[in-house]
Amino acid sequence: MPNVDFIFDFASPNAYLSHQVIPGIEERTGAKFNYVPCLLGGIFKATGNQAPMLAFAGIKGKLEYDRVEIERFIKRHNIAFTMNPHFPVNTLLIARAAVAADMEGQLADYVETVFNHMWREPKKMDDPEVVVAALNESGFDGQGLVEKTQDPAVKAKLVENTEKAVERGAFGIPTFYVGDEMFYGKDRLDQVEEEIRRQS
Amino acid sequence: MPNVDFIFDFASPNAYLSHQVIPGIEERTGAKFNYVPCLLGGIFKATGNQAPMLAFAGIKGKLEYDRVEIERFIKRHNIAFTMNPHFPVNTLLIARAAVAADMEGQLADYVETVFNHMWREPKKMDDPEVVVAALNESGFDGQGLVEKTQDPAVKAKLVENTEKAVERGAFGIPTFYVGDEMFYGKDRLDQVEEEIRRQS
Repeated sequence: MPNVDFIFDFASPNAYLSHQVIPGIEERTGAKFNYVPCLLGGIFKATGNQAPMLAFAGIKGKLEYDRVEIERFIKRHNIAFTMNPHFPVNTLLIARAAVAADMEGQLADYVETVFNHMWREPKKMDDPEVVVAALNESGFDGQGLVEKTQDPAVKAKLVENTEKAVERGAFGIPTFYVGDEMFYGKDRLDQVEEEIRRQS
Repeated sequence: MPNVDFIFDFASPNAYLSHQVIPGIEERTGAKFNYVPCLLGGIFKATGNQAPMLAFAGIKGKLEYDRVEIERFIKRHNIAFTMNPHFPVNTLLIARAAVAADMEGQLADYVETVFNHMWREPKKMDDPEVVVAALNESGFDGQGLVEKTQDPAVKAKLVENTEKAVERGAFGIPTFYVGDEMFYGKDRLDQVEEEIRRQS
């Protein structure tokens, strides 16, 4: 079974949408996706890329079409999605907390929880008080996780994840690796599934 | 059966690659794609968009990934493709000649022929002498078609096709319409096929 990495940031609606489709792929193929928390801002800075909202702002019709594509994806996969009214949310804190949660073996639950607080019952998840309250509400030790975000090892791991993704060729999120094969964008998940089968 | 339009320009490798996949979709669904010759340069000018080669030149990894995607598509669909060494080719002449060929009921043959001279046995198809020779070689009246490109009605029709595509939301090529539903990019052809079935 090949190694499958999911390069993600809670900031990305398309990462959230991918996260809703991944369980089905895991079930059908038997593969397990490794969730790799990264900072999209760091990837953009390292590659010279920028958010679609900025990059495509001057192109007539492009952002409108991207919205249609997102709506089609949501409809096709029957996903609950609410645009975060605080978008774009600075995800440094919740990304570091993801690394901390990972170190405690809680990453899967944490990811589920925080995506929910970002894109299903959206909150201002760059406000530490909001983050602590949201995590507590979901059964985590919010204060404890937020404190661990100041651990130099946690900070360093998030930087390392992000730099490594760029070294492997990522320039945006969501990015997937099946072995060494890279796929960019939620619309490549069909190809990701095929590639998993091919390498299995 | 819904109306299906294919907004294309011979300049675009992705239009050529789409053209190789369309016959299978037509066969499976019974739909017939209307090929609408347009000027990609005109679409770019009207929408503020630009060629990926320019738009993404500054983004580390992006153009490399796009090449991987093209290679995967070619492999998946088993397509004969040779990069045109004269890329980018100015397609004004061969796009106008496509309109002229359409007026004579020869569009399908012309499209097949010219895509072949662009992306299978690539030639400098913005050189009128090369164009005439290539068309003659393929059984067309090359000189006659090139002369008809100066017909004001032919010129106006190409402008009209291009403007209408922009009005409908196109910002690049290949763009597809199934009824009023727009799809951008060769990687949406699966969705185009699904939408044809949905509307049939």
